[in-house]
Amino acid sequence: MSTHDITAQDVTASTDSAVTTNSAASTGSAVSTTTTASAASTPSTAVATLPADAPSADSAAPDPRPSRRTVVTTAGATALAAGLTAASAAPATALSPAPAPATARDAAPPGIGEDAYTTVARAIVVHDERDQPLVPAYLRAVRNGLPPRRGRGTKRVLIVGAGPAGLLAADLLNRAGHDVVVIEANGNRVGGRIKTFRKGGHEDGAQPFADPLQYAEGGAMRLPESHPLLMALLEKFDLPRQEFLLVDVEVDNPTRRANRTWIHVNGVHVRRADYEKNPEKVNDTFGITGPNRTKTAAAILAEALEPAHRLIRGKEGTALVDGWAEVLKRYGHWSMYRYLTEVAGLDTRTIDLVGTIQNLTSRLHLSFLHSFLSSALIDPRTRFWEIKGGTAKLVDALYAPVKGKVRLDRRAVRIERDGGKVRVHTVSEDCQTGHGGVTEVFEGDEAIITVPFSGLRHVAFDPPLSYGKRRAITELHYDAATKVLLEFSRRWWEFTEEQWKQELDSIEDGLYEKYRAGRVTDGAYLGAHRSVKALGVTVPDEYRKCFSAFRPAAHDDPEAAHVRGGGSVSDNANRFMYFEHAHPMEGSDGGVMLASYSWADDALKWDAYADEERYLRALAGVQAVFGRRCEVFFTTKCKTQSWMRDHYAYGEASVLFPGQHAELFPDIPTSEGPLHFAGDHTSVKPAWIEGALESAVRTALKVHAG
Amino acid sequence: MSTHDITAQDVTASTDSAVTTNSAASTGSAVSTTTTASAASTPSTAVATLPADAPSADSAAPDPRPSRRTVVTTAGATALAAGLTAASAAPATALSPAPAPATARDAAPPGIGEDAYTTVARAIVVHDERDQPLVPAYLRAVRNGLPPRRGRGTKRVLIVGAGPAGLLAADLLNRAGHDVVVIEANGNRVGGRIKTFRKGGHEDGAQPFADPLQYAEGGAMRLPESHPLLMALLEKFDLPRQEFLLVDVEVDNPTRRANRTWIHVNGVHVRRADYEKNPEKVNDTFGITGPNRTKTAAAILAEALEPAHRLIRGKEGTALVDGWAEVLKRYGHWSMYRYLTEVAGLDTRTIDLVGTIQNLTSRLHLSFLHSFLSSALIDPRTRFWEIKGGTAKLVDALYAPVKGKVRLDRRAVRIERDGGKVRVHTVSEDCQTGHGGVTEVFEGDEAIITVPFSGLRHVAFDPPLSYGKRRAITELHYDAATKVLLEFSRRWWEFTEEQWKQELDSIEDGLYEKYRAGRVTDGAYLGAHRSVKALGVTVPDEYRKCFSAFRPAAHDDPEAAHVRGGGSVSDNANRFMYFEHAHPMEGSDGGVMLASYSWADDALKWDAYADEERYLRALAGVQAVFGRRCEVFFTTKCKTQSWMRDHYAYGEASVLFPGQHAELFPDIPTSEGPLHFAGDHTSVKPAWIEGALESAVRTALKVHAG
Repeated sequence: MSTHDITAQDVTASTDSAVTTNSAASTGSAVSTTTTASAASTPSTAVATLPADAPSADSAAPDPRPSRRTVVTTAGATALAAGLTAASAAPATALSPAPAPATARDAAPPGIGEDAYTTVARAIVVHDERDQPLVPAYLRAVRNGLPPRRGRGTKRVLIVGAGPAGLLAADLLNRAGHDVVVIEANGNRVGGRIKTFRKGGHEDGAQPFADPLQYAEGGAMRLPESHPLLMALLEKFDLPRQEFLLVDVEVDNPTRRANRTWIHVNGVHVRRADYEKNPEKVNDTFGITGPNRTKTAAAILAEALEPAHRLIRGKEGTALVDGWAEVLKRYGHWSMYRYLTEVAGLDTRTIDLVGTIQNLTSRLHLSFLHSFLSSALIDPRTRFWEIKGGTAKLVDALYAPVKGKVRLDRRAVRIERDGGKVRVHTVSEDCQTGHGGVTEVFEGDEAIITVPFSGLRHVAFDPPLSYGKRRAITELHYDAATKVLLEFSRRWWEFTEEQWKQELDSIEDGLYEKYRAGRVTDGAYLGAHRSVKALGVTVPDEYRKCFSAFRPAAHDDPEAAHVRGGGSVSDNANRFMYFEHAHPMEGSDGGVMLASYSWADDALKWDAYADEERYLRALAGVQAVFGRRCEVFFTTKCKTQSWMRDHYAYGEASVLFPGQHAELFPDIPTSEGPLHFAGDHTSVKPAWIEGALESAVRTALKVHAG
Repeated sequence: MSTHDITAQDVTASTDSAVTTNSAASTGSAVSTTTTASAASTPSTAVATLPADAPSADSAAPDPRPSRRTVVTTAGATALAAGLTAASAAPATALSPAPAPATARDAAPPGIGEDAYTTVARAIVVHDERDQPLVPAYLRAVRNGLPPRRGRGTKRVLIVGAGPAGLLAADLLNRAGHDVVVIEANGNRVGGRIKTFRKGGHEDGAQPFADPLQYAEGGAMRLPESHPLLMALLEKFDLPRQEFLLVDVEVDNPTRRANRTWIHVNGVHVRRADYEKNPEKVNDTFGITGPNRTKTAAAILAEALEPAHRLIRGKEGTALVDGWAEVLKRYGHWSMYRYLTEVAGLDTRTIDLVGTIQNLTSRLHLSFLHSFLSSALIDPRTRFWEIKGGTAKLVDALYAPVKGKVRLDRRAVRIERDGGKVRVHTVSEDCQTGHGGVTEVFEGDEAIITVPFSGLRHVAFDPPLSYGKRRAITELHYDAATKVLLEFSRRWWEFTEEQWKQELDSIEDGLYEKYRAGRVTDGAYLGAHRSVKALGVTVPDEYRKCFSAFRPAAHDDPEAAHVRGGGSVSDNANRFMYFEHAHPMEGSDGGVMLASYSWADDALKWDAYADEERYLRALAGVQAVFGRRCEVFFTTKCKTQSWMRDHYAYGEASVLFPGQHAELFPDIPTSEGPLHFAGDHTSVKPAWIEGALESAVRTALKVHAG
């Protein structure tokens, strides 16, 4: 099952440790003791594989979409060549200017055992120690629950964190008869890094946008079809879904790919389709010379990655594991910057180009492996889904069966093991600042800890965890990711020029031409369209006046985007812009635009601003790419999510530094006595729901079998 | 002048672009026009060297401390060997397990011209294009002002940012007769990343700690004697100073180095002096084997850096520049992780040790060069000063002569060049969220922009800046740094066990023994000492109750620290702990402890918490290292500074990624027409006041001469 092997991800999906504005000030420290009979927990420090007595891979329950297997396997090799039809046929051209890779240079760093590479390689392909795929058994658990247990007693299991990993593990164990408590830091919601801004959501229920029908994702937004556990859950819960349009489609014929969103870099506007036809117009602005001048950034990247791809292409089973182990040994301790420089021989200008357009710049100095895996997945050839009503609908479905088992507003601050019991000390949110609130201690036989390791850094363990786990908690890099979401009263990106003229002139006769001629030089028309008022919004004069300081200069305005869905890229601070939930929504002509989606340093620059400070800047960035006239539909209702500033998440996800896969990963999913570790970071799919689900099944099987 | 060449820094010193809670809501947009006659500004895109008509190096005014020259020159080569007396005598032992550096591997990346290395090398050693030291001329400017000008008119100069770079440049130009306006984003203070928490400081004047005499540094705290411009300013302003005790001294005999602060890692407490005598006790907890087992982390690091040091040791003038260029060519595109792995051949465990104790872990994946430069400076052999009353006294002195020229609460959001004029558009703080406030446009002939490049990412330039500058603004990495400062009513770290007994038993008979025996298991004694109440603080019961959830387990408490000054290191989240302003303070027995000073990922984990959430956690981290009993003196009055979350600073400083020195730096200090760029990030001393001062003189000379 090489299907999910060459995939990794970005969406966001896990869970936390925390506290919130909740609960009355009962200041007593209530120790809840186990009420059910519990078997002795005999801890073992096994690696992240299927327990010996768990069901083995079941060939009668394979991946339900075998036809995807081929596609996604190929994706690892060629799907990176977006827009390039013969990437694998031209492997070495980009290499010529580079020094030939010396043997010494490809050597793995000292002190890493051979085992480490194999362990990580197996985790990448989700194989067990016999190189058999684990997914069939995991799928069966997701669909049918945990396997029958051979007459042992049930356990009291504490699950720390109510993200998808915690909720799924809780449901599996609960249905299997165990006594489960889920301890969640947030006072007002579950779901972890699945967070939909929506009316009536479990997050305080407030209406986030002017249009009550609108919703948008602060976290996980695109669900890859190649993720089998996630797809199985969507089916199980019968959640209505629609395609997530990573590439935009024709407004009038949504089955046709348009590829008309913008590339806006170095002052040049080019539609993606035009860039594919004629890369020079953009490439010249970066000063690209030589053969790469006439290639797209995607093609250059695909060629650059070819030497690594060659190590895994077309392999299965043990050969595939060995191939990944070889990738890890050669490049696992490399940054993408080093790989592009030293293997692909790309010069600075070409790396600027590829980094800007293929979203690598901010992560150039992070692990080669992460971006290598991601680039295989976030690709125009991958099919993505979104859930109608928001990704949080999945959380609703996971939450429903265990709602009574979840304790909100309880942030874990200390985890003790003593006398065969696990005790999790928690505080409520107000208690963290010393101003009252509640402390509570939970006791169980075992615990599944789904808190990101960034968060575990501030949780005391007594006795301390193993050396390897402590180092992983200390060093595992978590990356920033920040989204700024702006609401518009019309999906203006679908307009033709004719529609623009009609809508703008309806505000003021001649306004269309006034915008075209660059004669609108202040913020007077911000939210001026009648549809904004129809949503109950009146934009104050001072708001318009402030905005005028931020809006871009009135130079060239591009023609109408006229697309549905898809993403645009800019070298301005906004970086990536997406139209999520791009399908027509009954009863609403408006839309929420993901006006800025940024990672790493790009995100941290937004994070320095308070939420409200991001909106006018983000709108100005959108205008720089799409033209200033869209401001007439701006409702002023915005949302933003910084995962690095989120004090339950401490980052978007674990995006490892060079070398951390081999150095740290083998110690990440291992259990320590009665403590088990789950969450997307315990998989090699950080930030993806699938990684969280894998870990939930893995740990639930382990607790159940133990 | 190889004196300041091998130095780089950490303290923090620059400035910003911004806005604040200030100014009435006059919503008009006032354009201030030039009132003085101004010469035509004839822009040139010169590199960061002395203008041709500026004074050349003056051998009659050398560094006032020639005796330091030798010391600091040597520091580059041997001072890293803290605690090791013969580092340079044992250069290659640590190398043996490593693969021999292949020639191909040491090759510089493609696309970087030879010029780039020379440019950066000259910036490191502060030499001009003829490899002559620039510092003598800079010193003369700091002491005596700008040189006389050959009959040209004065200019109206806009200076963006009122940190040390902006204030010094303003003063120099103002005294030389130019018409200067300093535009500062903060509404309530100047000083940039010099920020002293003190009573009556220009930041809202509130009293930060319970004891009105106490003050502490949120930013720059240690002033290296090897920084000549800074030392000249301290002299010029006659600022009272005292030694910053990087290494602790005897309480009873402050001239004697004690080296008794704690190393607290992997559950082991060792005093630094004991570690130097017997490194195994700590090294074994990391599993160090082989010859490094009996060496200190400092010694291992010094040996590891030897191959790079060899390239510059003992060189002067052009040879020194060439030496640095060679370091850049070989290792400039390397991370410290890669260097330690591939050149020094250190294994993971040894890197864990060195990283933990020598404060490298969180920056392992950043530029080798940065840590290489820093390690030469932040060293027990370097002498540091602190200013009595706080580093902000330096800002006070810089601010006084130009106070009337500084406009607070004006954040630059757009910088236009048009018709030979520069216009800086600004907004007040409330204006950034669209809720009223002020926009104002300033016009001048030229501008010195001291805003960190992280901040310039959100400033629009019209017309756009050059490609090189845009890439530098986009990519230049800024690092996080966060401090948590806790106030105690007694400097308990100076106590002997006898004093501890006396003070604790004065609270409750037998309390000393109760703490020793680990029988204090809650927060009941938090702030219980009479001296806390004497400062007017009564600790509420709920505060104590909350704290009990955070405090460390009651295992082994170490003996009394009994030190003055110095820093302790822990592998817990606090990482580094310093006793700043460690000298006895007349009228106060208390002290503020820098309870946590962390960088990069270590800092970002604190940054996810709101200010108040950091205090109880930081106190618990201090207790894990120093024992729980210190809580009786805790006044609950704390301060914290996250530079990454600061929306005027966006980071502690530019700490470059591998390769960025050669790729980006040459484009950083260059002027673009009438726009000049200053601030510590335009030097190769990011985070150090000296770098800001260098840049102030450089740009002031340029504007003055142009």
